[in-house]
Amino acid sequence: MQPLSIRDKILHSRLFLGTGKFGSARLMEDAVLASGTELVTVALKRVDLETQTDNLLAHLQHPHINLLPNTSGVRTANEAVFAAQLAREALETNWLKLEIHPDPRYLLPDPVETLKATEELAKLGFVVLPYIHADPVLCKRLEDAGTAAVMPLGAPIGTNKGLKTYDFLQIIIEQSKVPVIIDAGIGAPSDAAKAMEMGADAVLVNTAIAVAGNPVQMAAAFKLAVDAGRMAYEARLATAANHATASSPLTAFLHEEL
Amino acid sequence: MQPLSIRDKILHSRLFLGTGKFGSARLMEDAVLASGTELVTVALKRVDLETQTDNLLAHLQHPHINLLPNTSGVRTANEAVFAAQLAREALETNWLKLEIHPDPRYLLPDPVETLKATEELAKLGFVVLPYIHADPVLCKRLEDAGTAAVMPLGAPIGTNKGLKTYDFLQIIIEQSKVPVIIDAGIGAPSDAAKAMEMGADAVLVNTAIAVAGNPVQMAAAFKLAVDAGRMAYEARLATAANHATASSPLTAFLHEEL
Amino acid sequence: MQPLSIRDKILHSRLFLGTGKFGSARLMEDAVLASGTELVTVALKRVDLETQTDNLLAHLQHPHINLLPNTSGVRTANEAVFAAQLAREALETNWLKLEIHPDPRYLLPDPVETLKATEELAKLGFVVLPYIHADPVLCKRLEDAGTAAVMPLGAPIGTNKGLKTYDFLQIIIEQSKVPVIIDAGIGAPSDAAKAMEMGADAVLVNTAIAVAGNPVQMAAAFKLAVDAGRMAYEARLATAANHATASSPLTAFLHEEL
Amino acid sequence: MQPLSIRDKILHSRLFLGTGKFGSARLMEDAVLASGTELVTVALKRVDLETQTDNLLAHLQHPHINLLPNTSGVRTANEAVFAAQLAREALETNWLKLEIHPDPRYLLPDPVETLKATEELAKLGFVVLPYIHADPVLCKRLEDAGTAAVMPLGAPIGTNKGLKTYDFLQIIIEQSKVPVIIDAGIGAPSDAAKAMEMGADAVLVNTAIAVAGNPVQMAAAFKLAVDAGRMAYEARLATAANHATASSPLTAFLHEEL
Repeated sequence: MQPLSIRDKILHSRLFLGTGKFGSARLMEDAVLASGTELVTVALKRVDLETQTDNLLAHLQHPHINLLPNTSGVRTANEAVFAAQLAREALETNWLKLEIHPDPRYLLPDPVETLKATEELAKLGFVVLPYIHADPVLCKRLEDAGTAAVMPLGAPIGTNKGLKTYDFLQIIIEQSKVPVIIDAGIGAPSDAAKAMEMGADAVLVNTAIAVAGNPVQMAAAFKLAVDAGRMAYEARLATAANHATASSPLTAFLHEEL
Repeated sequence: MQPLSIRDKILHSRLFLGTGKFGSARLMEDAVLASGTELVTVALKRVDLETQTDNLLAHLQHPHINLLPNTSGVRTANEAVFAAQLAREALETNWLKLEIHPDPRYLLPDPVETLKATEELAKLGFVVLPYIHADPVLCKRLEDAGTAAVMPLGAPIGTNKGLKTYDFLQIIIEQSKVPVIIDAGIGAPSDAAKAMEMGADAVLVNTAIAVAGNPVQMAAAFKLAVDAGRMAYEARLATAANHATASSPLTAFLHEEL
Repeated sequence: MQPLSIRDKILHSRLFLGTGKFGSARLMEDAVLASGTELVTVALKRVDLETQTDNLLAHLQHPHINLLPNTSGVRTANEAVFAAQLAREALETNWLKLEIHPDPRYLLPDPVETLKATEELAKLGFVVLPYIHADPVLCKRLEDAGTAAVMPLGAPIGTNKGLKTYDFLQIIIEQSKVPVIIDAGIGAPSDAAKAMEMGADAVLVNTAIAVAGNPVQMAAAFKLAVDAGRMAYEARLATAANHATASSPLTAFLHEEL
Repeated sequence: MQPLSIRDKILHSRLFLGTGKFGSARLMEDAVLASGTELVTVALKRVDLETQTDNLLAHLQHPHINLLPNTSGVRTANEAVFAAQLAREALETNWLKLEIHPDPRYLLPDPVETLKATEELAKLGFVVLPYIHADPVLCKRLEDAGTAAVMPLGAPIGTNKGLKTYDFLQIIIEQSKVPVIIDAGIGAPSDAAKAMEMGADAVLVNTAIAVAGNPVQMAAAFKLAVDAGRMAYEARLATAANHATASSPLTAFLHEEL
């Protein structure tokens, strides 16, 4: 399988993990390791940044793991830029998952503020990966604004509903010049495999692993599914047909003779 | 992962392969090996049985591979019983994939002839695995008739349309006392993963592998997907929700202070 | 719109109604009248047949309403034939909706007993309309057995899930020489319209009307939807495309000049 | 059925029509009349505005028909404002369907320019109905900007794919304080009925009618379907269940006695 390049990083795993909602930081760590991921998103509270005793971060100290701080909770471009700078200082990375969602119920992203923040953050030297609606036009505008990738959602975050935006993801993948990472709604390994089969460059999963009966085994299952989907994409899937073409049957002779 | 038991056999792979439509017998063999399967279906022509020079069978001589002859092409229970006896003699196995499809266009199975043939074949000592429509009542009747498993279709064979019968497969899986193997329509690894996630015991794949751009790599992808789906099933998937439950955000503090 | 012929009857409404689950017989009557239906199914209890005081039947005494007794509750072909004869005597009609469902939970039909009963009832002079799974091969066998129509299900009865069997209904409609009536699962007027658009000859609705907030208005809504779907079928729908063909825009000139 | 209010207008039909792609202006007129619509969108070419001999407009001179000029073809907010002013002058209406789609292939709308143009046009006294992606956050921002309604798409325009954005339309309808009009992708009367059943305030249809085999009859079918969907919404649909609740069967007595 081809590795994934985002800017200067080469990633061998196309599965990104979120770190919220796990029963414990230890369980999160075990799931992260079982998933084979090389990129995990972290939403930090201020107190963690100050006290340097962040339990979460201690569990993510592995050489192959890159941290991707996110701005979860901000509601405007200005708040996002401020949060991004705090995160860069605290975590010593200019990578940023940009999330601007003013709506506390569905946590859906704001397209206008996200574009504005991406423009500003790109100028400030950030490697920006914005979480967005599966909006093909917005994706092209983010490209123009200097985004490093786009992260369209499959379904509202946390719902495990899968690739509800399938038809629009297809257009985004067809048109994009930057990596396309499906970011929300993926509820099962089959969803992740499907995203990869259609040509997505990576998927980000959190809830479906964190709240599974056995999160560590579920993380391992997602690892296999992402690999399966990518391999299938590279091996070129057959297209759907409306009926079969018969292959040679055992008993053709029966009809000849009986 | 738990192995699968069908009658006296223990199978460690839950992926079954069909052997039709491959570009060559050698390519078929490589795909079979890449898939990790332990059970492959074969539709033999009479001439092969007589001359003992069957190219196909020579490529399936591996200790871990079990042959499952199928009756593809028969149109009635009587024809099926006759074909089954020929196959048992030629291949020295009493396992049989029962396929009775009078319709040459969609190759859909006949429920009435299939039940009748299953009753007769079970009495004759066959281990019968019938290919059927995703009909929950028929599945129960086949159980009563002594079937070893049921093989409901996901979509018309050869169409690669996936799990179009999802709602009925759920009922079948919920009610069945014999293994449930999804048999037709699986067009991509994500379909196979989804079948396993919902609790199917195994899947049978042919067209999607045989006509892929790279059948061997596609076989390997299906192997991973079936494992992923089974692992996810055993790890218990989270259910779908209508909206997210927020996890602690980075910037909750922004709203407190700004 | 073309009227529908089933044997010797010409029906101007392609909406059939079931009479179960209504809050009262009066409400049922009002819904039946609002729907414009000319064919309603009735499941009678023995006591009703004997006492001649059947409340239900009294509410169905309208010149344009044909009764279609059903065998709901029988579990075998023999029981069905017995019930059919009782119904013919009591209701003075040889029309029969054949329902054989041994499973009390999902009320799914038995294909084998249904075929057997259809053969016997056709010989006994009944006009048989069997409720079946959306099984294209079974439909052809019922045709051979002398069925007057086929009534494949869209989803398990009472679930309101819509046309879950869509791909198989398409095959049935394409192949059938007798009218195809979609019989279960239709949960909303849009489902009924879709069934008609795809070429079904009629739909049978019960639960979706009977348990609606306002059953009479819902019946009227189904009437419109069935007409809409049939008109659209006759007017020939455009097919789906993957992208638009632009029509002449207002502002083409803007790009020429600005 | 309740009429629909948008600003100062009361509309008795909840079906809006586009006027592109018809075989002739006369055919368009007949379809418009058959649909019962009171609001039609028109994309005018400059020459039409100047010469006053617009064939299209002549066919829309009916007292109950309101014109809704659209800005189809513009690519930026500035172009949209300019086009809007031309349209207001030429057609003597301050109603405007705002369409900003920089992409000539899929004609998908630009969220950022659309919000900007809505803000400006609202200040200029326009009654703005913007065509947008099914983006719930954008809908709320448009509300804040003074939009008169929102027109989220069901699928890419001209594709006839139906309500591919269903999950997001649900959220939009739940949250919106202005009318929600589903604007693109509706390919069949059943799609229109479904949109209305889920609580949309109106639908806009063009391609599905204009390119039907018989556009006038298809327009009449859509009229019925929109009414059916709205009536069903007001009559409150039953929800989907996973299995039936049995109603009293004819043959319960069989099991008691046989």
